[in-house]
Amino acid sequence: MKDLKNYIETNKDRFLQELFGLIRIPSISSGGKFEDMTACAEYLKKSLLEAGVDKAEVMPTKGNPVVYAEKIIDPKLKTVLVYGHYDVMPADPIDLWKSPPFEPEVRDGKIYARGANDDKGQLFMHAKAFEFMVKTNQLPCNVKFMLEGEEEIGSPNLEAWCVEHKDMLKADVILVSDTGMIAKDIPAITTGLRGMSKVEVEVVGPNKDLHSGLFGGAVANPANILTKMLADLFDENNRITIPGFYDDVIEISAEERAAMAKAPFSQEAYNKALDIAEECGEKGFSTNERTGIRPTLDINGIWSGYIGEGSKTIVPSVANAKISMRLVPAQDNVKIAELFKKHFEEVAPKCVKVKVTVLPGGQAYVSPIDMPAYKAAEKAYEKTYGQTPIPVRSGGSIPIIATFEKVLGLKSILMGFGLEEDAIHSPNESFDLERFYKGIETIPYFYEEFAAM
Amino acid sequence: MKDLKNYIETNKDRFLQELFGLIRIPSISSGGKFEDMTACAEYLKKSLLEAGVDKAEVMPTKGNPVVYAEKIIDPKLKTVLVYGHYDVMPADPIDLWKSPPFEPEVRDGKIYARGANDDKGQLFMHAKAFEFMVKTNQLPCNVKFMLEGEEEIGSPNLEAWCVEHKDMLKADVILVSDTGMIAKDIPAITTGLRGMSKVEVEVVGPNKDLHSGLFGGAVANPANILTKMLADLFDENNRITIPGFYDDVIEISAEERAAMAKAPFSQEAYNKALDIAEECGEKGFSTNERTGIRPTLDINGIWSGYIGEGSKTIVPSVANAKISMRLVPAQDNVKIAELFKKHFEEVAPKCVKVKVTVLPGGQAYVSPIDMPAYKAAEKAYEKTYGQTPIPVRSGGSIPIIATFEKVLGLKSILMGFGLEEDAIHSPNESFDLERFYKGIETIPYFYEEFAAM
Repeated sequence: MKDLKNYIETNKDRFLQELFGLIRIPSISSGGKFEDMTACAEYLKKSLLEAGVDKAEVMPTKGNPVVYAEKIIDPKLKTVLVYGHYDVMPADPIDLWKSPPFEPEVRDGKIYARGANDDKGQLFMHAKAFEFMVKTNQLPCNVKFMLEGEEEIGSPNLEAWCVEHKDMLKADVILVSDTGMIAKDIPAITTGLRGMSKVEVEVVGPNKDLHSGLFGGAVANPANILTKMLADLFDENNRITIPGFYDDVIEISAEERAAMAKAPFSQEAYNKALDIAEECGEKGFSTNERTGIRPTLDINGIWSGYIGEGSKTIVPSVANAKISMRLVPAQDNVKIAELFKKHFEEVAPKCVKVKVTVLPGGQAYVSPIDMPAYKAAEKAYEKTYGQTPIPVRSGGSIPIIATFEKVLGLKSILMGFGLEEDAIHSPNESFDLERFYKGIETIPYFYEEFAAM
Repeated sequence: MKDLKNYIETNKDRFLQELFGLIRIPSISSGGKFEDMTACAEYLKKSLLEAGVDKAEVMPTKGNPVVYAEKIIDPKLKTVLVYGHYDVMPADPIDLWKSPPFEPEVRDGKIYARGANDDKGQLFMHAKAFEFMVKTNQLPCNVKFMLEGEEEIGSPNLEAWCVEHKDMLKADVILVSDTGMIAKDIPAITTGLRGMSKVEVEVVGPNKDLHSGLFGGAVANPANILTKMLADLFDENNRITIPGFYDDVIEISAEERAAMAKAPFSQEAYNKALDIAEECGEKGFSTNERTGIRPTLDINGIWSGYIGEGSKTIVPSVANAKISMRLVPAQDNVKIAELFKKHFEEVAPKCVKVKVTVLPGGQAYVSPIDMPAYKAAEKAYEKTYGQTPIPVRSGGSIPIIATFEKVLGLKSILMGFGLEEDAIHSPNESFDLERFYKGIETIPYFYEEFAAM
């Protein structure tokens, strides 16, 4: 790839301003406005047309639209299907942001904004890497872009859209940047993603909030009951007590665990960065194992009763919680959600009514490290970082990746440039400029290597 | 008392309109506006002056003002000190109200509004009963009014105010209507009130909300931890597990429990009214015992993480809960709050930081049934209801009542006209017109009987 570094250097300010334009549209899929989603999709369509695709479309779904674009230079050449998502997580708690979440700001070499990394920053690297290859006449493959607006809410409409457009989406591999590296100078390719089951639970007690003096202690308090039911989901070893929950978990061999344990990791630095005195999780597993090879259950939100200033001495009528479970390969997200529902409803005491709503989830994913696209990614990183990337099992979930394999029959290559310090999903999400530009530099090498295989 | 029924009949519409004026001022002590509290106090001052007191004042405290008024007809006569509170509970959840909480509306013979009963409706009966006695020249005692604006937040400033004005407040008994009856036609005098300890707890985990995929299962989730810590506050018999919690509880004799059990009560009707399949509470005790003679612990509010629409798959940074404990005679509220704090901080796992804030509480109260004022109240009820009121131990707390005994050396007579159906502290609080007018009728008889003793 000729002129790569120079092209990036010459255009880097424009790349950044274009990314800022994308970030400024508050495309929050959970509770945001449809018009913002559409505006964001249109912005990407325009960007891709300017970058050099043959055609680009904002295609409707039952939810937010998908941006589809392609450049077919020769049907006999290999085709790379780039996936990314333009929707972002909500920005609250908003008061913890040092600068407004949708006003990108560069401080100490980092872009601070919601979506700076996840996934606007990372998907935009692909648009700009593509632009470089087109403008310098070095594009070695056909390219298709599929950028969705519902990843953060579990991609509820993308599977149907893929089924409908299966022919249009034919490709040799899917390329995705929505994951992370080991450290600033240690690249990684994510070979495993956890699946996810999500549920929302509601515990209803008396038909109205009651005076805690006149009724407290005689009527089941749904907040008291919910806390007990949630606490009982764990045993004393922090194992999840839902019957059958671990049935399909593939236990990893001692050798494989030993190999994984060689990845550089400092528990002390990890705890210090999070300001915690000690870590906590399933007994018998390390921090990286807990997020990499073990399933987990987290309360994402809980609310009941009076939560304003001061006090209100009531027995609340209702208590609610949002819960997500991260799953490992072979655990089926639909089955696990149903196991949760069955268990939670069965253990509910008679004095309350319990309702469990299952939300869209996703399957776990594993990709082999001996396929050509993996090797191409490995070589691309070696060119820009001077070292072979480490294959890692991520604790995160991109549920649609498993769906792509099912519907399109395609494996995905997860070339991520994120770091834990980027605080995706948290206040003050960031993405450093160095990784943004290094991503734009690495991606063309992947095309070059993949085309040659 | 001559002309009593006739006076009420002639003036009943005016009484109601005057009460509505009082209710329309949204005097919420927990989170309301100071100017509304002052406006409410001024409204009462004007009402009492019009009713015939010699003097009335809105007296400042460190918090909301106290309305003090008096009519001294003869220093040698007995003096009744009327206590009430003009502050009300917050009105949320506001969307569950059928009519706006501060726009009183009469439907099916009931006033619907926040404060309709607690305590604006009940305290205003005293103003109007007093008016009747003054206007018809039948007042048989000296009368003092002490109406505060912070009862619902634990009367944090009234004790100091009482200490400061101890001489001014000299009286023979305190008369209060802030409690209830057994049924519409079965009067009751409350002889016991539960004390209260209140705390707010905060569990802090990582220093920011984290991605539940990348960190879930490896970092303590404060919502998971809080639910466990709260659940562990109860054993399998629904007894509170805080060490020492029951130490000072006076166990009631089997005979006394048998006597109390004779009060008319239908568990079926109770459950049906609350729309619950079954009751729930400390093993070995009945519903009335659970609220009357046993201490209890309720989560009044709990919140953590993402509680908006949709989902946000995070490990929250913080989890909080508001908790109230209702106490029985001999349990000290300060001691119990400290026991809670000590226990909760001790059992906190190292992976989180736990903070317990103790809020103002109050002592439990018991009044003997052989004192003259009790007998006078008994006779007053007999005249209007045709039957002897039942002495009851209420599950509620009016913390200041125990303080009055300590600071002023005065017992209180709790002549309440409320019913459970009034839904005090809940949406659609109500007070029926019949009990409002019957209260105004009963109170003058108390003065007559008490003066004669």
